[in-house]
Amino acid sequence: MDLIKFYEVTNVLKRLPRTGWLVKGIKNPESIAAHSFSTILLALIVGIERKDINLQKLLIMAIIHDLGESYIGDLTPASIELLGGNESKKKLEKEAITKLFDLLDEHKQKKLLDIYEQYINNETEEAKLLHQTDKLEMLLQAVEYQKVGYPKENLNEFWNAAESITDNTLVEILTYLKTRYR
Amino acid sequence: MDLIKFYEVTNVLKRLPRTGWLVKGIKNPESIAAHSFSTILLALIVGIERKDINLQKLLIMAIIHDLGESYIGDLTPASIELLGGNESKKKLEKEAITKLFDLLDEHKQKKLLDIYEQYINNETEEAKLLHQTDKLEMLLQAVEYQKVGYPKENLNEFWNAAESITDNTLVEILTYLKTRYR
Amino acid sequence: MDLIKFYEVTNVLKRLPRTGWLVKGIKNPESIAAHSFSTILLALIVGIERKDINLQKLLIMAIIHDLGESYIGDLTPASIELLGGNESKKKLEKEAITKLFDLLDEHKQKKLLDIYEQYINNETEEAKLLHQTDKLEMLLQAVEYQKVGYPKENLNEFWNAAESITDNTLVEILTYLKTRYR
Amino acid sequence: MDLIKFYEVTNVLKRLPRTGWLVKGIKNPESIAAHSFSTILLALIVGIERKDINLQKLLIMAIIHDLGESYIGDLTPASIELLGGNESKKKLEKEAITKLFDLLDEHKQKKLLDIYEQYINNETEEAKLLHQTDKLEMLLQAVEYQKVGYPKENLNEFWNAAESITDNTLVEILTYLKTRYR
Amino acid sequence: MDLIKFYEVTNVLKRLPRTGWLVKGIKNPESIAAHSFSTILLALIVGIERKDINLQKLLIMAIIHDLGESYIGDLTPASIELLGGNESKKKLEKEAITKLFDLLDEHKQKKLLDIYEQYINNETEEAKLLHQTDKLEMLLQAVEYQKVGYPKENLNEFWNAAESITDNTLVEILTYLKTRYR
Amino acid sequence: MDLIKFYEVTNVLKRLPRTGWLVKGIKNPESIAAHSFSTILLALIVGIERKDINLQKLLIMAIIHDLGESYIGDLTPASIELLGGNESKKKLEKEAITKLFDLLDEHKQKKLLDIYEQYINNETEEAKLLHQTDKLEMLLQAVEYQKVGYPKENLNEFWNAAESITDNTLVEILTYLKTRYR
Repeated sequence: MDLIKFYEVTNVLKRLPRTGWLVKGIKNPESIAAHSFSTILLALIVGIERKDINLQKLLIMAIIHDLGESYIGDLTPASIELLGGNESKKKLEKEAITKLFDLLDEHKQKKLLDIYEQYINNETEEAKLLHQTDKLEMLLQAVEYQKVGYPKENLNEFWNAAESITDNTLVEILTYLKTRYR
Repeated sequence: MDLIKFYEVTNVLKRLPRTGWLVKGIKNPESIAAHSFSTILLALIVGIERKDINLQKLLIMAIIHDLGESYIGDLTPASIELLGGNESKKKLEKEAITKLFDLLDEHKQKKLLDIYEQYINNETEEAKLLHQTDKLEMLLQAVEYQKVGYPKENLNEFWNAAESITDNTLVEILTYLKTRYR
Repeated sequence: MDLIKFYEVTNVLKRLPRTGWLVKGIKNPESIAAHSFSTILLALIVGIERKDINLQKLLIMAIIHDLGESYIGDLTPASIELLGGNESKKKLEKEAITKLFDLLDEHKQKKLLDIYEQYINNETEEAKLLHQTDKLEMLLQAVEYQKVGYPKENLNEFWNAAESITDNTLVEILTYLKTRYR
Repeated sequence: MDLIKFYEVTNVLKRLPRTGWLVKGIKNPESIAAHSFSTILLALIVGIERKDINLQKLLIMAIIHDLGESYIGDLTPASIELLGGNESKKKLEKEAITKLFDLLDEHKQKKLLDIYEQYINNETEEAKLLHQTDKLEMLLQAVEYQKVGYPKENLNEFWNAAESITDNTLVEILTYLKTRYR
Repeated sequence: MDLIKFYEVTNVLKRLPRTGWLVKGIKNPESIAAHSFSTILLALIVGIERKDINLQKLLIMAIIHDLGESYIGDLTPASIELLGGNESKKKLEKEAITKLFDLLDEHKQKKLLDIYEQYINNETEEAKLLHQTDKLEMLLQAVEYQKVGYPKENLNEFWNAAESITDNTLVEILTYLKTRYR
Repeated sequence: MDLIKFYEVTNVLKRLPRTGWLVKGIKNPESIAAHSFSTILLALIVGIERKDINLQKLLIMAIIHDLGESYIGDLTPASIELLGGNESKKKLEKEAITKLFDLLDEHKQKKLLDIYEQYINNETEEAKLLHQTDKLEMLLQAVEYQKVGYPKENLNEFWNAAESITDNTLVEILTYLKTRYR
């Protein structure tokens, strides 16, 4: 049955580690599922009660944005580069998620794919907010590692990546974070 | 800053194991965050395009339904019994989540608490669907363990618990699951 | 058979992590059983050859003092607070251990419960020494984490908690520890 | 300070895995400390209220019987054989524990070494009971693994080793265990 | 310094899990480095004293054959399919290893790349033997998991993959393995 | 069949942790297999294209140098001391590896044992290079731990051990490493 297959395929996200942390030397890092949960929650807290945001769309986007990794795992940065950069990565993830959504009936498939495309094209307010939320979650997790001994200087790339955050609410969090942990 | 505090408190869900699996003998089981993610995703797939369901409410409910465990951890079944049963557990989780939502501004707080109360009172369609989805997710995860060697007979309690599932879509999944794995 | 059931229930202590460390960000921390072992050993080394201490009673007390956690797990500090503080926690652990000792015959039950009550009431010399030993073990373990990179400032709460230690032998250890690691 | 050194050396028992399980293919098995705790507890439950047993001596013996492994780790069976069998192993563990007890003052040292020697010489009632309890604990742990999928046939060697158990109470447990899990 | 960089990049193989096992539900599986070691050792035992094999070349080939995964991780089967199948995978791994060998001086680079190309083109005796050894090692590891409870039926794909083994020595091992574990 | 037995015995190296790291407080450290792989690779990179080195011999030596640990595990430093120092350790490992090679046919056995003896006697150029490479790998791994928070001062013993490195290529790496990480 396709829904069970869908569950089985995405269940692997509970076991797949975030390779970014592994490459940086952190053993037994969070799973992709754990990161996704944290990003969804952050998106909810930031997106709720915002007039410029369709909350339901934002939540769905956050829930599905990493589902392609059920098939392709968490690609390392080097891997993305070798594949030809971000465009190729987006293409690959799009194929993965399309294959996954094939397990759903046509209506659901269409609706979810539509939202996914908004995300990778980064063209709607929800997509922009989610991309930045995703980035902030990574920085927040890195700060958690810093609090238990991961050296401060290793976080530079996360702080730099966060520079591209422009959403007011997120910038506010980021600014406070900087004064406290940078 | 309260939003950062909110992140820090809920970040622990990435590390806290589901004690139910530990008690049953499964080492290094999934984290609470991983289970939550899987439940949210299942709720999305089941709840999308359903006329009797307010999808946004269902998703928010799924995202927040285990947040109380950030403070109190995943209570063991024996623990719940000793605390005086399900009512006391609900009371405790309600207090935990209220404490957590105190970190949010009043508007968000009110909205989320309202949805949370619907959940624990199991009074709306969304609450009923989520409770059953949560139960089904546990069974599906148990089946995943069975597939790698966890003995069939250990799953009886999960199959029994799933008897209370009445939602048509979920019953359909359950029925198929039974013919294949019970 | 009740003794086997007793073994099975307490065996879970080998798998249950100390949630205090998890909450503080330490992954894969020691199990409750491992902490118990270390506390028992410390109690033996400190309590042996002391005229004011009944060694047999001290050892039994150390062995059983965390057994209630077989049922209720290692409650997080926040959890204890939400349950209504230390008194409620003691009540809960007392119920848990009573349930566990129900698996033993009446004589053993009575003897062990009697020692357990001395412990939670902190009224005998052995109880006082064990409470302080337990606290010192936590600090010593924290120092072990510090030695592999866990930041010094995270240990403040352990140093503060250790201020309540008054037993001469333990104070001596503590004093030396301070000069070396604080 | 020697007591702190003593703690540091024995703290490693929390991290050292039982190599017997590793060799048998079980990943992330219990630590030596966890096994010790379980053995101590079993010894307490079995030894309490027995007229032929000096309980205090039994408990001390159980607490210290694996301390030598702080220095030498948990020797694999093949390793023991290559070292020249059980006698050489006992000699090595004796040297290890003597080195460890050198960190204690003379009185404690003497008392503990005396009890340890009774244990390795297996000459007192307490020593005989502890050796058999240790063996039973291993079997009980193996049964725990069997309950989560470890194949029955792998337990034959544990059942065979348990044949040497003659103590009435332990035999009773063993007999029941056989009817249920063999 | 380039040699240190080379070490740092390949050191990640110690932490990267074999995703094939993760996808199949096995938690905390072997690292890529551990699998590589086992394959190298098997290649040595099988290839030594064989007249048709240049042993030095075989060993070098075995040592380097998975080094590309330092950059791209262990691609999941689904990932390879989505990338366009085995040819694209080979192309990607070739790019990865070329990038890695750029850290070595030209002579070493050339020599190692030459051997690597023989491997991916599967054109020399050493390449053919190594491909089959690699496949056999996966089956042998799967059998190890079977011995601790991983269900027999999950190994079918490994047995099927092993059908392509034609080397006499490896076929002999395989035949024996079948009679014992299939 | 002996070759399968050989695989089974050495497969345990994938699970056995390097006890040296455990004793130093590092949880879930690399396996013996992972360390071996890294040492083999380093030996290849350093030994290739060297006129004074028989590369094939060097690689075989690197592959087999820790195989004795399949039987005896990774002895702790304290354990080696108690066994009577390095000579006794070498004797024990020699016996272990002889027992292991008994599973191979006589020709292979003789050839591999001959190379192993050159290694433990440290009498050939290959043996000298491998001993130093092994030492350097440990230091490089320690530096990896330092990069994720393991305190600098804990590495002193590794830096000191590395003082015995005299091979020109290795000294060059070491010198650079010092300027960067000491």
